[in-house]
Amino acid sequence: MGRWEPDSRGRLQEAALALFSERGFDQTTAAQIAARAGVTERTFFRHFADKREVLFGGSVLLGERIIEGVENAPGADGPLDAVSRGLDAAADFLGESRRDLARQRQSVIAANPELRERELAKLADYAVRVAATLRKRGVSEPQAIFASEAGMTVLRVAVDRWANEEDGRDLADIMRDSVAELRSVTVRR
Amino acid sequence: MGRWEPDSRGRLQEAALALFSERGFDQTTAAQIAARAGVTERTFFRHFADKREVLFGGSVLLGERIIEGVENAPGADGPLDAVSRGLDAAADFLGESRRDLARQRQSVIAANPELRERELAKLADYAVRVAATLRKRGVSEPQAIFASEAGMTVLRVAVDRWANEEDGRDLADIMRDSVAELRSVTVRR
Repeated sequence: MGRWEPDSRGRLQEAALALFSERGFDQTTAAQIAARAGVTERTFFRHFADKREVLFGGSVLLGERIIEGVENAPGADGPLDAVSRGLDAAADFLGESRRDLARQRQSVIAANPELRERELAKLADYAVRVAATLRKRGVSEPQAIFASEAGMTVLRVAVDRWANEEDGRDLADIMRDSVAELRSVTVRR
Repeated sequence: MGRWEPDSRGRLQEAALALFSERGFDQTTAAQIAARAGVTERTFFRHFADKREVLFGGSVLLGERIIEGVENAPGADGPLDAVSRGLDAAADFLGESRRDLARQRQSVIAANPELRERELAKLADYAVRVAATLRKRGVSEPQAIFASEAGMTVLRVAVDRWANEEDGRDLADIMRDSVAELRSVTVRR
């Protein structure tokens, strides 16, 4: 390998997702991912701490975008309105990624109990931090928890629909529709 | 031990929660729980498959009560109204237990990552089943998921408030207030 490696990170991600889908996450090694991507194992470890990080490497940044979105919500926003700004930010961030890779990521995670737990723990962590951000805005308990948890359910469902449905709408639209559907659910009949 | 053991199950639960609180869940053995309760280890295993079941033994029954509550909701109920019937049933079921033991259970679970995951997995399982029950009532996606997930957040928060707050209200009241607070969160300002 020369020092100039055009998008080896992107190729590693594609290779990893392909291998995880074909063989299963547990059966895939970093060496195999590197070989499939045509790079050395050392290059793999320059980009990712381990194979799990291929799936969760964007989590920290995504969390930051969501929190920023909530923090920057206008003061007059209700709790779910503010969370919805965080979800718009998440849609902007994730909507840039390739839908086919997002779909592969979803099915790899769905197939592995440990990865499913990791994904749920990630969302639970976002929920705790969004709730803390809402409290700083003056939202009281338990409303802060309800709004943040509902928001993370919307995030999960919307990303899932975006990755798996063939309706071609972009993630931002699906996210906004999903928030509207959440609102419709709580109406007393 | 004679064959006649007045409420040895109850004494085992009390002993287990006391030991889990004092020493930590991982540091407590079934033999120690039995000794503290004044019964044989064999008696412990007649009541519980392992020490974890002392904390989660009621989960199956609780899940059944919630589902029955949702199933028996009047046809005119909206999604969250129907889930709320399931939560009333949960409050009836759990409200019978001793508040001090519920509080001990909560702090033991909060102190142990593995138990926290187990508790979250339990709620996630209820949410999946409640969503399936809503779908049978004609609720479409994603509303079924939003209503069921929000309901399980309410369950978690309400039980937590009931166990830990000193306001003396019973669980059924706290549960209903919490549902109202959830509704208030989703209102657009």
